[in-house]
Amino acid sequence: MSKEKNPKEALEELGKDLAKDVLANKPPILDVPIRALSNVNFNKKSETLELGNKTSERNFFNVAHAKKFLQTLEVAAVSKELLDVGKHASLRDVFYMVKRTIPNTKVNVVDDQAESDDAMEDLEVLSGLSREQLHVNANKMGSVAGHVVVEDKGDEIDWSKMGSGGWSIPSNVEEIKFKKVKAKYVIYMEKAAVWERLHEDKFWDKQNCIIMSSQGQTTRGIRRLLQRLSQEHDLPIYVLCDGDVWGSYIYSVLKYGSINLAHMAGSMTIRTAKYLGITMDDIEKYGLKKHLITLNEQDYKRLEQLQNYEWFKDNKAWQRQFKLMKALKGKVEIQSLSSRGISFISEKYLPEKIKNKEFID
Amino acid sequence: MSKEKNPKEALEELGKDLAKDVLANKPPILDVPIRALSNVNFNKKSETLELGNKTSERNFFNVAHAKKFLQTLEVAAVSKELLDVGKHASLRDVFYMVKRTIPNTKVNVVDDQAESDDAMEDLEVLSGLSREQLHVNANKMGSVAGHVVVEDKGDEIDWSKMGSGGWSIPSNVEEIKFKKVKAKYVIYMEKAAVWERLHEDKFWDKQNCIIMSSQGQTTRGIRRLLQRLSQEHDLPIYVLCDGDVWGSYIYSVLKYGSINLAHMAGSMTIRTAKYLGITMDDIEKYGLKKHLITLNEQDYKRLEQLQNYEWFKDNKAWQRQFKLMKALKGKVEIQSLSSRGISFISEKYLPEKIKNKEFID
Repeated sequence: MSKEKNPKEALEELGKDLAKDVLANKPPILDVPIRALSNVNFNKKSETLELGNKTSERNFFNVAHAKKFLQTLEVAAVSKELLDVGKHASLRDVFYMVKRTIPNTKVNVVDDQAESDDAMEDLEVLSGLSREQLHVNANKMGSVAGHVVVEDKGDEIDWSKMGSGGWSIPSNVEEIKFKKVKAKYVIYMEKAAVWERLHEDKFWDKQNCIIMSSQGQTTRGIRRLLQRLSQEHDLPIYVLCDGDVWGSYIYSVLKYGSINLAHMAGSMTIRTAKYLGITMDDIEKYGLKKHLITLNEQDYKRLEQLQNYEWFKDNKAWQRQFKLMKALKGKVEIQSLSSRGISFISEKYLPEKIKNKEFID
Repeated sequence: MSKEKNPKEALEELGKDLAKDVLANKPPILDVPIRALSNVNFNKKSETLELGNKTSERNFFNVAHAKKFLQTLEVAAVSKELLDVGKHASLRDVFYMVKRTIPNTKVNVVDDQAESDDAMEDLEVLSGLSREQLHVNANKMGSVAGHVVVEDKGDEIDWSKMGSGGWSIPSNVEEIKFKKVKAKYVIYMEKAAVWERLHEDKFWDKQNCIIMSSQGQTTRGIRRLLQRLSQEHDLPIYVLCDGDVWGSYIYSVLKYGSINLAHMAGSMTIRTAKYLGITMDDIEKYGLKKHLITLNEQDYKRLEQLQNYEWFKDNKAWQRQFKLMKALKGKVEIQSLSSRGISFISEKYLPEKIKNKEFID
């Protein structure tokens, strides 16, 4: 994913190539890299999920391809329009902007959002640009605090002066400029309530770090923000999740990428991310055994999958965690630490683990 | 819900009353107002859902009551501790703080969070204080922007200088001080992506208003923030939701309260809130007919319920909406306005509707 590429030029190039075919009386064809498990490889050297070389041809004059061809171009046209007027849209907006009936037919360009989303991902691989660079945003979520000053849309925002709320992380962080970053590391946590705990305890101030959270899944905005802090400011990223398969998967996606977004690996994965907790070892060490929640069928199924992921298969530390989880037959939440005292997490658990570098890599 | 009540004193009073019973050799008893539909009335005068007068006795020496009695007191003790140290916890934290095995038995004080949540709500009705006043927070979500300056935890936060992210709304807004409020009204919307659209278009600056959003359900923090802006600054609150039963219900809860939180009616409902859209009339007027999504079984079921709610039953404007929805057999999303152009919502739809006062009350 090249960052130097100019999005408008990339789209114009795409259009010119097709126009050239048309003017030469050749059928316009798009060669779209295949985005499916069959074309996703785990690159052992870079340790990220990557798209392979297989492409699929989309020929405008092939009835089986014509609609997908049109959808991709329509989405490209919307993106071009957004870039021209300097505005951003959500995937849902794009769906409605593309959705219309083709004149003199009863056929809609798209019937549901899955189609325009798909076309958008095709446009990402075709143009080598991220959706955000094409001015189409993911959902917005999450808060951040720390001794950081950023410039965004002409405003100077001091993450250390945001009261109890913090700065609300935008869906698109590509244009944010870091003016001051005074932190030794970043803790990303999957739960907003844990963030509020650490924030109220001024953890980021006392420990000189940045705290960031979403609620549940990690949004693309957060992933990019973490990646930028990691790459541009060389900050270690520590991931704090529930001690369960879903927590392990949140970490897995942050660090290695996801199958869906394999084509985005470069701009999305954080290779240096480390898993901070909750680990299966924490259960014994911090007296959380009575808070074990029994694994259900879904947990076991997911656990099996995780154990067999290529990027976890040869990772002894993770395999040990998965085995322990199976042996304990249970999972444990971050907030079970509250049973040891409301600020146990910020006064003992986190400082101790970070000082002793007790991470899973 | 009295705001003058001192939370610590209220809890101490509760404890003293019980201690008095014990010292007088009487069984300690809690009289807890019943929080169920059977004891929830719609007050036609104040137009809010209210708790009735029925109470249920919780006698410590009645085996059927003892556990609930204990749970309520344990939750009160946790709340007292939080107030003493000046910290806040989430409901999940409270669960873990209360959860322990009673010595010499195999009985846990609570086995799952529903029990401690329930005890917390009992404590709210018993003490006449909100969970937030008792230092237990709901989930955090949502963003806000506008020409407003607040003071929170010693920080001065200017909602007009928050870049593209906005201020992240905390779960507890009780202690926020409004230093400057320059706005004619507030638009609350159920979708973060719509908020980002309006924010990028500087809608709040051009229209001199405040824009606020969550994602899906309205959190208690947001409800209180809206209510405070309405009561303390006399600002009209306009609600922008999808044109469907779920949107109508979001509005219903904001304006009239919810059955679950009937005991909180005073500090939660916004009696002056008005529904701005999407209305069934908008569909014709703004050419959204082709974006109608067919109602499913669940929609019809919910529609039936809404039509029969006491607070909607005699409301002609809403009954008309519900009938139209049935006749159209469809629902429509806010973002379908994007089919008319990316900024159609901020340049035409909203200014026009607000100027013409096209609200549903």
